[in-house]
Amino acid sequence: MIVETMINEVIAEKLDIDKLSSTSNTFHIADLGCSVGPNTYIAVQNVIEAVESKYKSIGLASETPEFQVFFNDHATNDFNTLFTSLPPEKSYFVACVPGSFYGRLFPQSSLHIVHVSYALHWLSKVPEEVLDINSPAWNRGKIYYTSASDEVFNAYAAQFANDVNNFLNARAEEVVSGGLVLLVMTAIPDGVHRSQSASGMIYDALGLCLMDMGLISESQVDALNLPVYTTSPKEMAGLIQGNGHFSIEKMKLTDPLMRIDEPVDMQRCTTHIRAAVEGVLVKHFGCSEKMDEIFGRFNQKAAKYSVMDASYKKGTLLFVALKRK
Amino acid sequence: MIVETMINEVIAEKLDIDKLSSTSNTFHIADLGCSVGPNTYIAVQNVIEAVESKYKSIGLASETPEFQVFFNDHATNDFNTLFTSLPPEKSYFVACVPGSFYGRLFPQSSLHIVHVSYALHWLSKVPEEVLDINSPAWNRGKIYYTSASDEVFNAYAAQFANDVNNFLNARAEEVVSGGLVLLVMTAIPDGVHRSQSASGMIYDALGLCLMDMGLISESQVDALNLPVYTTSPKEMAGLIQGNGHFSIEKMKLTDPLMRIDEPVDMQRCTTHIRAAVEGVLVKHFGCSEKMDEIFGRFNQKAAKYSVMDASYKKGTLLFVALKRK
Repeated sequence: MIVETMINEVIAEKLDIDKLSSTSNTFHIADLGCSVGPNTYIAVQNVIEAVESKYKSIGLASETPEFQVFFNDHATNDFNTLFTSLPPEKSYFVACVPGSFYGRLFPQSSLHIVHVSYALHWLSKVPEEVLDINSPAWNRGKIYYTSASDEVFNAYAAQFANDVNNFLNARAEEVVSGGLVLLVMTAIPDGVHRSQSASGMIYDALGLCLMDMGLISESQVDALNLPVYTTSPKEMAGLIQGNGHFSIEKMKLTDPLMRIDEPVDMQRCTTHIRAAVEGVLVKHFGCSEKMDEIFGRFNQKAAKYSVMDASYKKGTLLFVALKRK
Repeated sequence: MIVETMINEVIAEKLDIDKLSSTSNTFHIADLGCSVGPNTYIAVQNVIEAVESKYKSIGLASETPEFQVFFNDHATNDFNTLFTSLPPEKSYFVACVPGSFYGRLFPQSSLHIVHVSYALHWLSKVPEEVLDINSPAWNRGKIYYTSASDEVFNAYAAQFANDVNNFLNARAEEVVSGGLVLLVMTAIPDGVHRSQSASGMIYDALGLCLMDMGLISESQVDALNLPVYTTSPKEMAGLIQGNGHFSIEKMKLTDPLMRIDEPVDMQRCTTHIRAAVEGVLVKHFGCSEKMDEIFGRFNQKAAKYSVMDASYKKGTLLFVALKRK
């Protein structure tokens, strides 16, 4: 609801209808990293309603264009499931686009609003140095960078910076001048050390679990590095400004899922983590049979870790609204 | 190859680049009823190369636009297979669109070329009358209209006319003025009776096989009617003119697959038929186990039917090129 409200506000205040209407008689929206639904449908419906409200608010309701929505994810995403779960009553034309959003996916100046929710923290790949036993950034005995050396962390940060730059360059080609890019990302507050991030600690706990349980060898843990990165507002702002193609219209760190005064629901937390990383683990270990056991044990073990501390619940979600210059 | 050549000619002679360029900086192509590939990729590549040649031929090679290709089929089509078999080196942006092409699939005036190959003979549904025991068009003991009564045939023809009109109305909204619709369809020559059509006789033979084999009851055969229709050039021209939104730029009946002087390859024929109707049979009978047996027996039996007669090999494919008025 927090994100929805922020998106509504940005579209109401920042979307320049006059400028966009001149480029096409259809309003094109892309949801990148859409997965299989239904979250993507809810998000897209909200964006469309916000755009329709904008047309109404400026007295142009009768000129509201038709909407075409592009759902994007990797070519290996289960698009069959996505399509068979499409809302039956929808007010837009559907298309879907397979491929990585770190490269070009759409024609020049063809998109008006791009929405990316919980997807840009996935790196395009594991940084090569952390897998290299001869590199100072070799990530021994861990599956993530949270409690690893600065070298490991820097390798992850460099990969993220490179990926974000590629992402912004591709979108700069595809988004019309005046069009919006709406990013919803996992994040950590400025000035908080990586070892204190909620998601990072959880991934570390998962790595320890895997070894404790004797399910995998130490060398398998060495070879496994989760290709995800948690940015901070300051870091993200720097990358956007460094890229130069977009202005930052709104940037806000918030806590959509957690309440400081309530205990963490570890079962729910485990479900989220499992949804995020199960695919990576199965691919790495080549079997899916052990996943129930892994996450069952993780759920028990994680309760003992200090992720319950209220400080980790602060500032876990970053909302960024960009406008194509 | 015959179809490819005809498409190249139509694009070279009939595509009005100047008119289309003013509507968008991207050239939009849709392949409707694309299935899972790879035929759709080959067809689309040919269309793109023909458009590129057109730009070159009029000295506008440097103004060749980017191409975005929309692959369409029913939402239950296996898009996962389609996406994982995309050509790695392709010169266009890919999108896919789920849904029936008998309704709207795309925004207003958003397409420049529509290609529909071996898809428009699939009716949107079985005509209701042929399933109605109280109707004079009840199709007793047959799974198709070829050797059925005139009432059955008329019900099929009316359904086809209605479907084609819906198809043309939807495309009339979606295709820009001057844009092309290229249809490749199964057909029967003008003046040839339906009982003499190759595909019809094959379907009739299949129906008799199903009963002969005792695999299904007579009432199951009564309830099964293949939702396909084979048109003729004259009939198709009449439907297009009656609709009124498109001009016929080219219409040609041809024989791409068969040679009059060679015997029919029944194994290949069975493979084609199976690809076309297996889904319908499985859906109807609720099991896929019997399909090997059904088509194995069909292959043996079909050889005895008179589909071998050379007259059935003439005029099986209709190419129609339409331009949006």
